[in-house]
Order: sequence, then structure tokens, then C-alpha cells
Amino acid sequence: MQNFVYDIPTKVYFGPDQLSHLGEELKKFGTRVLLTYGGGSIKKTGLYDRVVAEIERAGLTLFELSGIEPNPRITSVNKGVALCREHKIDVLLAVGGGSTIDATKFIGAGYYHDGDAWDLLSDKTPITNCLPIVTVLTLSATGSEMDAGGVISNLETRDKIGRGHPAMRPKVSFLDPTATYTVGPYQTACGAADILSHLMETYFNADGSLYMLDRMMEGLMETVVHAAPVALAEPENYEARANLMWASSWAINGFTRTCQTCEWSCHPMEHELSAFYDITHGLGLAILTPRWMEHVLDEESAPHLARFARSVFRVDAALPDREAAREGIARLSAFLFDTLGLKSTFTALGIDDTHFAEMAKKACGGGVLQGYRPLRPADVEAIFRACL
Amino acid sequence: MQNFVYDIPTKVYFGPDQLSHLGEELKKFGTRVLLTYGGGSIKKTGLYDRVVAEIERAGLTLFELSGIEPNPRITSVNKGVALCREHKIDVLLAVGGGSTIDATKFIGAGYYHDGDAWDLLSDKTPITNCLPIVTVLTLSATGSEMDAGGVISNLETRDKIGRGHPAMRPKVSFLDPTATYTVGPYQTACGAADILSHLMETYFNADGSLYMLDRMMEGLMETVVHAAPVALAEPENYEARANLMWASSWAINGFTRTCQTCEWSCHPMEHELSAFYDITHGLGLAILTPRWMEHVLDEESAPHLARFARSVFRVDAALPDREAAREGIARLSAFLFDTLGLKSTFTALGIDDTHFAEMAKKACGGGVLQGYRPLRPADVEAIFRACL
Repeated sequence: MQNFVYDIPTKVYFGPDQLSHLGEELKKFGTRVLLTYGGGSIKKTGLYDRVVAEIERAGLTLFELSGIEPNPRITSVNKGVALCREHKIDVLLAVGGGSTIDATKFIGAGYYHDGDAWDLLSDKTPITNCLPIVTVLTLSATGSEMDAGGVISNLETRDKIGRGHPAMRPKVSFLDPTATYTVGPYQTACGAADILSHLMETYFNADGSLYMLDRMMEGLMETVVHAAPVALAEPENYEARANLMWASSWAINGFTRTCQTCEWSCHPMEHELSAFYDITHGLGLAILTPRWMEHVLDEESAPHLARFARSVFRVDAALPDREAAREGIARLSAFLFDTLGLKSTFTALGIDDTHFAEMAKKACGGGVLQGYRPLRPADVEAIFRACL
Repeated sequence: MQNFVYDIPTKVYFGPDQLSHLGEELKKFGTRVLLTYGGGSIKKTGLYDRVVAEIERAGLTLFELSGIEPNPRITSVNKGVALCREHKIDVLLAVGGGSTIDATKFIGAGYYHDGDAWDLLSDKTPITNCLPIVTVLTLSATGSEMDAGGVISNLETRDKIGRGHPAMRPKVSFLDPTATYTVGPYQTACGAADILSHLMETYFNADGSLYMLDRMMEGLMETVVHAAPVALAEPENYEARANLMWASSWAINGFTRTCQTCEWSCHPMEHELSAFYDITHGLGLAILTPRWMEHVLDEESAPHLARFARSVFRVDAALPDREAAREGIARLSAFLFDTLGLKSTFTALGIDDTHFAEMAKKACGGGVLQGYRPLRPADVEAIFRACL
């Protein structure tokens, strides 16, 4: 394991009726607030009205950017940057899911960059700073509410790129599980798949973790497997929604991956998928993950995959490692495609092999994808084919 | 579960060779540093010299308070407060274990109180603020390096009292597992017992937790049971020392107990024990905990105790709850008294029942101890007797 610096100062208000603290928290950063959100579902649920009322009660000046897309686009980011400059914004308030929060992070970072915000994603220019961000979360999935990164799509270049900077970590996040009661079964399922994937990408790393963090990740994965079916069956089950919400933050806030340089495997592959086809991130991950596991299962990885199977899916401790690993993959597939009801193949999404070669090359960044096991473009293409 | 605010901003440098960052972190708070430490073991190990060298390299002005006791005393705290005023201290640097850090927290809080610092512990005066605290940890046990509380003894009044305030949480802590290589088997064992107790006190609560946090606590408890024997057998096993150190912080930094008002059971009993007999905190907890479990085991608590037994000690899943609970208590005892080699009875420590009645009354705060199960003075006395 490596030395690390743990520095996750995001303050979280968890539970219903915490929005009464929104004004006091925003005020710490200034008086001019840019509220960012997506397609307007927060207007239907009444959350928009509650947020605006709190901002008015606090005497703050409100500006708005709506229409942030799922798989948020650089065009929205640049629009937000322009608004921040025009209105001398002090603090950004993202109300929504990971897409809205991710876009807001790059609005905040783009504010400090003289030029197209895409420069910060294409690595032309390093991120140096970010306007302070407060979030009100409406979807348990990406963990963007407590992490320091974000992912932005560029439809022109067919790129979907993730970058981060400590200043992009939200200062304060409001997590109200009841705000996810209206999230439908498909988005709930995709969110659960996303959370699970964040944990698996870190849990299966080649760099050596800490026993303690592995055990805590197993507990988090077990939580997703436990809570997601309850949330699907009873959308207003507070306990289930609360577990998914808090797990989404801890799956990716950085705590579990402190002591390793862990390169992820499924996320880079999925990013190509949604860059080319604009599908839901969690769905892409769900389809890819079991195939990736099959691809990397060998003598060396079998004990690790078996431990996952036994801890998270309670696979019989008496089974030999390789069998336990296979059984774990089968139970994961059953969880994702039967219990969560997600589509299990690319074909079912209307995706064929047209772009596989190009996507595979891009996923490997022009070289080798250094994940749990090194993946060459041919490996990635084979995994894509197994998903058909 | 209750609403909560998660706010744990302590920055942690973890690993060897991180002290090169000490100067830059101290400087954020000012230039006049009061270094606090205990009996001088840090001089023998060379840690003192390294810390002083870093302070000098950063051009800071150093003052010192040494001789802070195990079970630190209010007399040391008041001495420290006087030094802070005399030398216009900007930042406190505690180098040591929980005792040194706890005393330092009350030095920092006492600085803002006009009068005897004991007023802050006896509840005569609320804690309002604290000088910034940086710590360099040398013992994995109390978790004081990342929490917002501390415990101070008053030998005159035979009181040992814990209090906390958000401002008392260390701003930065340096956790170097190699700094605990020289910790002997007895202190290593007592530290492990203390960490385990913090987790058990929270895990066994009457107020309803979150599934996710219960699973993560099980992972942390499993970590202690896994790592402590390795650290005893191989004092310079980095992985074992690292697991104990990071687990000590997470056992009690507040993360696991956010969504419950959890009143602890064994700690209040142990505080009376060490207030009367000045024994090591972790040893007192080790002796008390299995007896307390036996005392509270009933039909209602059996499933909870059984889950603990199965998760932490891998007790056979097929055993009925009550038997599994008993087996868990037996394995916990074997862990504490055989594996860790701690003394198992009060008698072995030369403690008899002379003060049991008084200690039991004090542990219940003059009323009922509202822990996992309500404990009246007669209950506490019975638990004390079972420890003879």
C-alpha cells in the first residue's frame, strides 16, 4: 500500500427537512448564487420551489441555468461559465443528479480558465481552481455530491472524459433520501449498478489495498445488493433509499481508494459506449461488468473474485475459489439483470459491433488500459463482443 | 434512524515520511507552536528530534509542555492553558497517543475559558472554542486523532469525564504506522481492545442504525481481530500496524454513529474503574465487555449479538441465535484474554469490591445508564462482580 493524504471535507446534511440550512451554508461563500439543474423534474416534485424559497429567505440573489443533459455536454458547461462571468457569481448550487453536479463542477473550474472549458478536459490546460459548489442531490448513483471529479461529453468529438481537482469537491451537500422517492425503477436500478461498479473498480485493483478498506467496501457492496431491491419494490422505503444514497457517496468519495493507484477497467470502456451511443452510464456498466469479470478470471484472480462472491453474495464458503468466482459472476448477473431488471446485452439496446474497434482503441487511450488486469484493444473488443 | 450532519474535516497524512508536510500545515494557523507530549518515549525513538527539526525548518517558534500522564489530568491541562496565554500560542501540536491528544484538546478549549479548565468538564461552563490542533500519533487506540472529544481525570474528585466540541477536532493528523513499531505487546493489546470497544459500543445501540454503517462497522471489527494478532507476533508488520492505526480513527471519528443517539455502556463503567484505580483504559474495557454482553443477552438481543458473532468471529451460520451469541462472547473472550494476552479479571489487577457501589452509582450518573439496555446501579454492580 502507498502513503496517502485523506482530505474529504465535504459537509453533508442528511435527511428530510434539512434544506432550512441551505441559506446559511450558501451565505458562507457570498450572495450571488447560480442554481443549476436539468430537465425540470425538480419543478414537478416541488423541490425547485423549496430551494428557491430558501434562497429568497436568506436574501440571496438567484440566477439560473437549466437544461443540463444526462451525460452532460461541454456546451452546457460553457453556457454556465458565461453566466458566472456575466453575473459575478459567488457560489454554484447544483440541484439534481450526477450529471447536473458534474457539469456544475466544470462550470466552477471553467470560470478560472480563459478559453473553452473543454481545454480542462482535453488536458490542454490544467484545472487550477473552482467556484464553491453546494449540491442538493436527487439521485443516488454517481457520488458526485462528495467527490472531486466529473465527466463531460463532447458530442462533436465523440469524447466523454473525466477529470478532477480538489477544489471541485462540493463544500456542502444536502442528501434527502425522500427526494429519490420519485426516481423510477429504471433510474434506481442504473444508479445501484453505478454505485456497485464504483466499489468493484476499486475493490478489484492490482495495486494492493488495505484489509480494512476491503472489508468496508464489501460492506458497502452488500448494502447495495440489500437495499436496491427494497427500493424497487417499495419506492418510498426510507431505509432503502437512505442506504443507497449514503452508499453512493462513500463508494467514490476517495476514502476507499486512498492507498492505491487504482486504474479502473469498466468505466473507461463504458465511457466510450455512452460517448458513441449516449446510453445511461449505469446500464452500460451493468452490461460490461460481468463480462469483464469473466475475461479477467484466471488462477491468480480467482481467490479475489471468490472472496467478492462469498462476502457480497454469500456464496457457499466451501466452494473452491474458481467455482465460487463463477458463482459470484452468475449471482451478480442475476442481481443486475433479473433483480434490478436491467437489459443484459448491447443487442437489446440496438448497439452492434460497428464502432467496437474504434471504441476499444479509445478506451485504451491509444495504448493499454492498465486496470485490474492490463487490457489491450483486442481484450476490450472481446469484452464488447461478449456483451452482444 | 435520525437526520444527521456529517462534518469530519480532519486532514490525515498517512504513512512514513509524511512529516515533511508538518511545517506547511502548522504555518496555516500561525507561527507560535506549543508542542505537547507525555513521558518522553518520543525522545528515545527519535520522533521528538524529527518533529523539532521540521518546526525549525519551517521557521516556527517552539514552546513545550511535557509530562502529560496516561489518563491525563486536569492539572496538566491547566498548566498548558497557562503556557498558551503566556506565550501567545497560535497552534497546538500534540505528539503522542490519546492521552496527550485529549489533554491538548482541553488546553485548546481552556484557552477560551476564563477560569479552571475543569469547569468545561464538570459542565459548569460550555466549551465554546478551541485553539487549532495538529497531532502526530504514536499509539493506535483512542481515535482522538480524528474525533472531537476527550477524557480528562481529576484525581482530587476521583472523576474521569469526557466532553467534546466540534472545534476540538484536530485540523490535521499525521498517522505513521511505523511510529507504533516500538509499542509493546501490552499497549498494542490494550489499544486493540479500545478500538474494538468503540465499535461495539456503537454497533450495539438501541436507537436503530443504518444497514450500511452496521456492515462497515463489522468490517472494522473484523479488521481489529485480523490485524492485532499479527501486530503482536510481528511488531514491525507495516500492514498490521496500518490497519490498526486507520481503524482506530474510523472507529470513533463520528462516521459510524451519525444517525443515532447512541449512549455507550462499557465506557462509562470503565471510566469509573480507571478513575478509582488508574488502570489502562483498554484493559478495563476488555475485562468489562464480555461480562456486559452476558448481562444484556436475552431473547430480544440474541439476534443482534448473533450477527456480531457471525460477522466478526465467523461463528457457524447454522447455530441458533442464542447459541451463536454465546459462542461469540466466548470467542471475544478468547481473543481478548488468550490471543491479546490481557488479564481477564479485576482480581488479577488487585481490584476488589470495596468501591463497587460508589463506582456503579457514578457510572449511572446518579440515575440509569441508558446504553444498549438500560443499566441501573444494581446492574452495573452485578457486571463488576462478574469481572472479579
